[in-house]
Amino acid sequence: MAFHFPQKVLFKHCDPAGIVFYPRYFEMLNDAVEAFFDEALGLPFETLHDSGGVPTAEITTRFHAPSRHGDHLTIALTVTRVGRSSLGLTFHTDCGGEPRFTAHSTLVLVDENGRPRPWPEAVRQKLLDREEAPAHAP
Amino acid sequence: MAFHFPQKVLFKHCDPAGIVFYPRYFEMLNDAVEAFFDEALGLPFETLHDSGGVPTAEITTRFHAPSRHGDHLTIALTVTRVGRSSLGLTFHTDCGGEPRFTAHSTLVLVDENGRPRPWPEAVRQKLLDREEAPAHAP
Amino acid sequence: MAFHFPQKVLFKHCDPAGIVFYPRYFEMLNDAVEAFFDEALGLPFETLHDSGGVPTAEITTRFHAPSRHGDHLTIALTVTRVGRSSLGLTFHTDCGGEPRFTAHSTLVLVDENGRPRPWPEAVRQKLLDREEAPAHAP
Amino acid sequence: MAFHFPQKVLFKHCDPAGIVFYPRYFEMLNDAVEAFFDEALGLPFETLHDSGGVPTAEITTRFHAPSRHGDHLTIALTVTRVGRSSLGLTFHTDCGGEPRFTAHSTLVLVDENGRPRPWPEAVRQKLLDREEAPAHAP
Repeated sequence: MAFHFPQKVLFKHCDPAGIVFYPRYFEMLNDAVEAFFDEALGLPFETLHDSGGVPTAEITTRFHAPSRHGDHLTIALTVTRVGRSSLGLTFHTDCGGEPRFTAHSTLVLVDENGRPRPWPEAVRQKLLDREEAPAHAP
Repeated sequence: MAFHFPQKVLFKHCDPAGIVFYPRYFEMLNDAVEAFFDEALGLPFETLHDSGGVPTAEITTRFHAPSRHGDHLTIALTVTRVGRSSLGLTFHTDCGGEPRFTAHSTLVLVDENGRPRPWPEAVRQKLLDREEAPAHAP
Repeated sequence: MAFHFPQKVLFKHCDPAGIVFYPRYFEMLNDAVEAFFDEALGLPFETLHDSGGVPTAEITTRFHAPSRHGDHLTIALTVTRVGRSSLGLTFHTDCGGEPRFTAHSTLVLVDENGRPRPWPEAVRQKLLDREEAPAHAP
Repeated sequence: MAFHFPQKVLFKHCDPAGIVFYPRYFEMLNDAVEAFFDEALGLPFETLHDSGGVPTAEITTRFHAPSRHGDHLTIALTVTRVGRSSLGLTFHTDCGGEPRFTAHSTLVLVDENGRPRPWPEAVRQKLLDREEAPAHAP
């Protein structure tokens, strides 16, 4: 069960070649994760960050085709692995069915000192309910 | 022979947790590549982009430890693979010897229509002179 | 008749002090103007930029109170002056009625060579329909 | 006695029209202020922000001509007013003598609760030594 995050490509995202400047994609992914934690897990970042956070430990990204100003993207976020403190996510981003980029990331829940802490049980259960085997990467 | 790019962590890079917001790292990497093309290859982006560009096809990043406001980072860029139109790069970023993040990327030289084009011979030679076998990732 | 643009304060907007990093406010204003041109004027930026653009000639901004992560802001954009090629806008941004910042800007419609060009008549009429005397700045 | 901050226009700063996206100018101004506090006042932001900060209360900016990728800009920062807790700054930015934008801002030194606090005496003296009557804006 993927979480879908819509993102229109705006002027601010685009470079002199008229396509998305790729560091902006990582801002979009961060926004998608923030929306997922808020809407799907009931754990808004603005609350979570009082007592730690969820830094990204690693992220692998493959860009399939450029995105242009005005494109309506959809980021489909899936949970691919739930660890004690970690979380594997996959993001498939397309524009009207045309793949644009795919990313795989690992986040870690940490306390205010940056040390891993276990997912609260209610959150862990919601994550497990969404867990899917990772699809073969395109 | 690595190309070294110094980058102090500035206020603008940091998030509410006081550490670098990771999409900002990709801006730093892009700045490092832009400096490398200008200073090491004699191919400044502002000229290159009149007739195409070097979009990133894929990038894998592993974050070892957070960076804080005021840290003096060094990004060591090495050429790990020179293809006909592509280029493999590795980035080791540290702060006074302490590893912060490692990235591996593939760029592709494209023409104004986004189609791959071969490296100009003089540029290809400079890239080959710098080519190194990829180190074992930390 | 103001055009209202909602903007939640996200993680990416905030600095180590936990408040919005002010250059991010200008991205928000740009997004608000982009939405206004698209939704209220029928002149989406992605089309407009094929034949020029609307660069900002000047902008004055006063910050009344800081905004924090999670705040639900509303940017109220009003048209305060319609020139031959220029446009005066005022932005009142609040969070649940509490003022956060006020900005006054002047945009200019330019052609692909950066030279001012007159508003198309249909657009000019829509702008005039929305024109309001500027309120006394708070 | 102006403080000069060099800034090459990089790929990341530019929009689809090939010119600097204006919110990026405010990042440049923030970087210039951060360098001024560090190098001229001996008050690096990374230290200052442990006990407060210097939020911008207002800023007025006039854009004279667009800047393009590869331009070598110089931001000349002058101190125009030293208050008890506030500071008036003017920024003249040019490219090889050609004016690009001018900004006037007011900053306020605040404590960790966001309340104005007086400049430390040594800092205040350095600011007064640099104070100049504001030039007539171009």
